[in-house]
Amino acid sequence: MVTSLIAGGAGFIGSHLAEELVRLGRKVIVVDDLTNGRMGNLASVEDQITFHQHDITRGLLSLEGLEGIGEIYDLACYPRQISFANPIRDCEVNLTGTISCLELARKTGAKVLFTSNTGIVSNPQSLPVDETFVPNPLTPYDIHKLASEYMLKAYHKYHRIRAVTVRFASIYGPRQRVNDKLGWKPVIPEFVTKFLSGKVPTIDGDGRQTRDFLYVKDAVRGVVQAMESKAPEANNGGMFILGTCVETSINDICSAIVQLLDSKVKAQHGPAKLEDIMRMRYDYTKAKTTFGFDPETSLEDGLRETVEFLRKEARSQISGP
Amino acid sequence: MVTSLIAGGAGFIGSHLAEELVRLGRKVIVVDDLTNGRMGNLASVEDQITFHQHDITRGLLSLEGLEGIGEIYDLACYPRQISFANPIRDCEVNLTGTISCLELARKTGAKVLFTSNTGIVSNPQSLPVDETFVPNPLTPYDIHKLASEYMLKAYHKYHRIRAVTVRFASIYGPRQRVNDKLGWKPVIPEFVTKFLSGKVPTIDGDGRQTRDFLYVKDAVRGVVQAMESKAPEANNGGMFILGTCVETSINDICSAIVQLLDSKVKAQHGPAKLEDIMRMRYDYTKAKTTFGFDPETSLEDGLRETVEFLRKEARSQISGP
Repeated sequence: MVTSLIAGGAGFIGSHLAEELVRLGRKVIVVDDLTNGRMGNLASVEDQITFHQHDITRGLLSLEGLEGIGEIYDLACYPRQISFANPIRDCEVNLTGTISCLELARKTGAKVLFTSNTGIVSNPQSLPVDETFVPNPLTPYDIHKLASEYMLKAYHKYHRIRAVTVRFASIYGPRQRVNDKLGWKPVIPEFVTKFLSGKVPTIDGDGRQTRDFLYVKDAVRGVVQAMESKAPEANNGGMFILGTCVETSINDICSAIVQLLDSKVKAQHGPAKLEDIMRMRYDYTKAKTTFGFDPETSLEDGLRETVEFLRKEARSQISGP
Repeated sequence: MVTSLIAGGAGFIGSHLAEELVRLGRKVIVVDDLTNGRMGNLASVEDQITFHQHDITRGLLSLEGLEGIGEIYDLACYPRQISFANPIRDCEVNLTGTISCLELARKTGAKVLFTSNTGIVSNPQSLPVDETFVPNPLTPYDIHKLASEYMLKAYHKYHRIRAVTVRFASIYGPRQRVNDKLGWKPVIPEFVTKFLSGKVPTIDGDGRQTRDFLYVKDAVRGVVQAMESKAPEANNGGMFILGTCVETSINDICSAIVQLLDSKVKAQHGPAKLEDIMRMRYDYTKAKTTFGFDPETSLEDGLRETVEFLRKEARSQISGP
């Protein structure tokens, strides 16, 4: 039985990964400092996993019971939106945390999967973006993610660690939430939450900027495929894009949410964000041909699940203790 | 009168820069934690500078008297040779330290100069290497240096900080020393020190690997020129290579040292180093045309000064207390 460690496993994507790995019969260890993650995310697998409340930026070698691990999924993440406000913490989580995972891999021989982000290329000359585009990181978040990608390659070359990077498009789905305390406002939950409470959401700029939205369960399948792949490129620190190759504008996603909620409120437009990326469409051919990644969930279906989740949560908060 | 802050100003290159800035009439503040730097390096300007023993990775905003600074030179550095042994400390010094300098620039409006390294491109397809080569960092040191370069660009774009990066070739000269405690062994002082004590130095591999050796006083002149330049590229986070565009093999540098010392000892060859760079020759045309950088010191002259310095130091240690 393979033992898997998930750094950031109580978070939005991490908790879906924990469920998927339990379903696949892995022994799952979750490490999370619960800054943005929460135990409630792991409710369905609580009895089947081992949990450590621990900040991975302090290293992982001090934790007990990690001798036999075979896989390390590094999903711990500090959000791009606030990385200029706290660049040093961003460095710790998005880069030092990855080094902690790689150092644990040195001790255990585990394979490391790092989750990076397609925003690293920022505004490219052409679309769709594939793995050959030269990086152009414009925020501390993107700089540290890129540095971690290089770190995987360096550890593979120098220490022979098996390692793979996946670069996520814009992941969405149940358990993605606005975190006001951190200042983290992912666009879909931000819109849905505002509409549900009768408030007016704000669209940055003219709203014609596009995103490549990938449903979380599809993303998690891709992550496991990348980890299981024996292809050299999926073990030598190589990098794979996980997206849908479909563009959706912020205006269109807002309209779709309005329709699903049958909301009477209309979103307003605010000033454009500095360093915002105007268009995103990501070519996932490499992941498809190497390990069979293929997203299955339509934006309509994924959005319905997401809205349903947030609606339930809003209700339980109103009627809750 | 311009006030200049030098992070790492008690080190090898930093102390030469402190002397040059004092000569040019700047008010000089040196910040150094004395891990590798030493007060003795600043003996000639001791009375004319302000010194803070302080670790820049803890930030600079807590230090007093920095309100009026106009220039920040980030020369604090953790060595490449030991960066795999302590990647997290490398990250702190080579990246978090730079963020500390940039955050200070945000508060003061000072211009930031960051000293990076040409090794970032590792083994290129062709020579000489110029600023257009795509980076290929293979060690934590190179990854963090590259991340800092990106950080300067990001702070310029987002916070309008004036910033410039210089990428050093292999700098050598008086005050460059072997640091056994840190495990730092720059090739020229390593060879000279071994020969002077009658020990046999070891050449990594066949010794045919080349370096582009730039004398420290030439490097320092280039650093000041880059800081003083009003050219957009020298203020928007642009990057300039400082080198000589001359290759010298490790075997040849060893022979030149043997000749200068009239040594009877012969160096031995050891195993090649992992991730060693085979050839280095750096095109400094951009620095020359933008701000007039042009190295003046021949390798012969520079090497003579260096050997003379190390010989004196060895004598004073033997006869010293």
